[in-house]
This record gives sequence, C-alpha cells and structure tokens, in this order.
Amino acid sequence: MSKTIIYTVRVEFGDCDPARIVWFPNFFRWIDAASRHFFIECGVPPWHETEKTTGLIGTPLVDTQASFLRTASYGDVLDIHVSIGEWRNKSFVQRYRILRGDDEIMRCDEVRIFAAAKEGGGIRALPVPGDIRALCS
Amino acid sequence: MSKTIIYTVRVEFGDCDPARIVWFPNFFRWIDAASRHFFIECGVPPWHETEKTTGLIGTPLVDTQASFLRTASYGDVLDIHVSIGEWRNKSFVQRYRILRGDDEIMRCDEVRIFAAAKEGGGIRALPVPGDIRALCS
Amino acid sequence: MSKTIIYTVRVEFGDCDPARIVWFPNFFRWIDAASRHFFIECGVPPWHETEKTTGLIGTPLVDTQASFLRTASYGDVLDIHVSIGEWRNKSFVQRYRILRGDDEIMRCDEVRIFAAAKEGGGIRALPVPGDIRALCS
Amino acid sequence: MSKTIIYTVRVEFGDCDPARIVWFPNFFRWIDAASRHFFIECGVPPWHETEKTTGLIGTPLVDTQASFLRTASYGDVLDIHVSIGEWRNKSFVQRYRILRGDDEIMRCDEVRIFAAAKEGGGIRALPVPGDIRALCS
Repeated sequence: MSKTIIYTVRVEFGDCDPARIVWFPNFFRWIDAASRHFFIECGVPPWHETEKTTGLIGTPLVDTQASFLRTASYGDVLDIHVSIGEWRNKSFVQRYRILRGDDEIMRCDEVRIFAAAKEGGGIRALPVPGDIRALCS
Repeated sequence: MSKTIIYTVRVEFGDCDPARIVWFPNFFRWIDAASRHFFIECGVPPWHETEKTTGLIGTPLVDTQASFLRTASYGDVLDIHVSIGEWRNKSFVQRYRILRGDDEIMRCDEVRIFAAAKEGGGIRALPVPGDIRALCS
Repeated sequence: MSKTIIYTVRVEFGDCDPARIVWFPNFFRWIDAASRHFFIECGVPPWHETEKTTGLIGTPLVDTQASFLRTASYGDVLDIHVSIGEWRNKSFVQRYRILRGDDEIMRCDEVRIFAAAKEGGGIRALPVPGDIRALCS
Repeated sequence: MSKTIIYTVRVEFGDCDPARIVWFPNFFRWIDAASRHFFIECGVPPWHETEKTTGLIGTPLVDTQASFLRTASYGDVLDIHVSIGEWRNKSFVQRYRILRGDDEIMRCDEVRIFAAAKEGGGIRALPVPGDIRALCS
C-alpha cells in the first residue's frame, strides 16, 4: 500500500529535560524531519524546487494524534518508521512509529496537506499531486 | 468546572520556517510551557519543590490530539487558554485553545499524568494529588 | 550613543536540560528574539515588510562572542538588555546583557549584517541603512 | 595533540528560518551534541554514569566565540570536526569546524568546564579529570 522509510535519530543531552527524558516537542521536531525525509527517499524533489515548478512549498499539518508509550533518554537511538496511511483528495495521513530496538516509544498519525503560498500571505491546500502519490506508493 | 488560565506568547522570526509560518513543533513547546504555567497560576509549587516533598517531577504527556486551524507568523501575539477538561484516577485531560485576537489558531487536548522518578531510571504515574486537583478547580 | 531596549523572558521547564539549568542554545534563541525586538521597539518595520520595500530580509550573524556568568533555571525571569555597541559600514555590533534581578547571567557581543536575498539563493550584505541607524540611536 | 572526531548533521526544513537559511541557534544545538559525542567517541562514559561515580554531570559552557562564514540550508549535510584546542586546570577549549564538503560554514571555540551539582542547586567546576584528558588526547 505504501512504502515504509526509516529515519534514524540519536537522542542528545539537550533533547532531554530536567526529568532526564526527551522533552516531548522534540519528538515532533524529529517527526517533521522524518516526514520530509520520507518524500525525499521516495524521489520527490525538495520543496524549494517544487516551489519553483508547481508552487508546492511543503506539507503543513492539519491534525495530529500521538501516543507516548515509553520514555527515551540521551544515548538512545530511535528509528522512526514512516508510511502513508491514507490518501484523500486534498490531504493525506502520514503515519509514524518510533522504535528503540523492539520497544515502541511513540506512535503518531498526522493529517497533512500539500500547500502553496497564498496571495497576500498564508497558505492554501493543493490537490494531492498524482506524481507524488505514485512515487510514495 | 475548571479554572482557565491564559498564557501569552509572542511569535518570533526564529519560530517560523521557510514557508514563513510557525514551525508546528513550536506550538507544542508553547503548550508545554502553558501547561506548567497553568499549575503555577493555580498555586501549585514548581516541580523542583514537589520533587522534594511528594516525589512529583512533572506532568509528562501520554496522548495528544491537536488541530491546526490557521497559520501564524512572527509578530503575532498568541493567547493560549488552558483548562482541565477532565480528571481521571491516574491522569487528566489538559485542554488548550490558541487564539490570535478572535481567530482560533490551534486546538489541543492532552492526556497527562503526574509522574515520579522510578528506581533505576524512567518514570511512573502517581494518583492525581487531591490538593492539586482542588487548587485547579 | 544607543538606545537600550529590554526584552523579558520567562525560563520554562523545557528550556532546561538534565543538569536542571538552561540549555545554552536557548540563550541564543532568546538573544535572536531580543535582537529583532530591539529594532521593532526602535520603530523599524518587520523584515517581511522591509523585504518588499528595500529587500532587507533580516540581520544574520557574522560573529558572536558570549560569556556565561551564572546559571539560570525554570521559574527565573530574565531581562535581556539590548543596545548597539558600534555601527560599521556594512555591519554592526549588537550588545546583550542578560540579568536576573541584579545578577548578570550572560553577556554577548554579536556582529550582524543587514542582509538581502541573493540571486540563485543565499544572502548578501547591504550597507547599514541610514534610516535604521537613526531610529536606533 | 588532540583527537579529531566528526559529528555529521543533516539540515532539516525546520532548522531554517523565513530567510531560508539555518537559524543560527541551531548551530549551537548541533555543536553541543558534537561536544558530547566527542567524549563518547573518545571512550568517556555518558554523564548519567559519571554522575554516579565522580559527580560529573556535564560540561557546561563558560565562553563561546563563533564565526559564521557561509550560510547553510535544508538538504545540506554538515560535518562538525571536533577537537580539544587546549587543556587548562579547571577548564578546556573545545574547537569546532563545520564543513559542507570543502566549504567552511562555521568556526567555533568554546571554553567549557567539567561540572558537578552544588549543594542547594547550581553547579561547580571540577578539576579536569586526568583519565578523561588521557582518553581525548
């Protein structure tokens, strides 16, 4: 149904908070990088190129749903497994499972859109580009 | 049912990405600050004090569900309205609405626990402390 | 010689690392916000406006020299005192003193330029705009 | 004189600002990770282990001096070359050169200390541990 691409992250000291565990916004930082990495690995050009050709500037989030199952700390190596859970007309579900070895640390489903800049500022949703969908399936 | 506390954020240049809008992990950064600020404003001592008295080191996330309704950019001032949506035995729902003036930018429901350090590393959930619940209602 | 503008920061839990003190890159995050805030308070338009009028997109760093004098932790309120230490032809020195009450936490001197986008990507330095210099003095 | 260890970083979309270049505090984030990585690669145990044995909790910054020579953007791969420039009694100079291929992007010299927690909060400097110095030379 969808390719699965793995993005690997080393947890650093500065990613952790005074409770000595990963400060959770950092998970979303890594997930955003894993999202972009997924498209690059599938052969989609970087957004600064697509901006010039089709106006596509990125894939901003619409909705996110995440579960934090285990804590992680610095020294850990995390594998973020990324796939597309569902294609819709003007959005798609990008799915993440973050593993440390066999332990599942976090699970996340995101609804994202393909966005173009809007006249006068802000962004607007583009229809899912067929060529990108084909590359990622 | 619950107090509502407002935490105000100025969006900075560095909070925005090449699409010129807030890079979404920053919303979670602010939400985490707003979460802690809520407890402080309700009269709960900071976690480095509760750690010494009751072992409570913070309120890590279990689940989060967020919707991104409008974009924001630098120069914007955002008001994060924080309340407790529900108290459970060993967790609670903390609710956020981020507004720019009357415009709703983001909405988020989090399930969090009250955590103590566990022997040998990691964390464990404490029952919801009655005094904290009273202070926040 | 130069105006001094104060930018105030609340230190948050997530700004601190497992040593329970502010993780130092966060000081630079705040300093960058204080830098931009200085210009706004002096009456300089935001960069997304100057980009359209004069091409000026921001004030990227060329050099920085910082001393960390005391640690800070969450709950602290920090006042960042910002001024221009020196105007040069194509750059300027922006000066920061971070105080917690009377205690000096950090001191920083930055060399920054006024930058425009360069054809084909990257940035180039503009001469120091006379009107901006006048507004900040 | 000193080992040189390379820490490699992929620049991500979210590391860049509306000027489409790396937002500079992120360089310090990577440098801090590269600093810790240097000690790990040299065979020094992680700080959460040394905290239990010798009280050493990390190597906080005292001074930093950085020059930004070229911009970087997302898609770039950066190699951070780390070495010890000088050992002093209670501090050391850690040296960084960030390269993209042959292009030098940033150069940084830091003065850091080996720190232990101080009674009642805060940190204090330890003499440079002889075994760590030997491992890194």
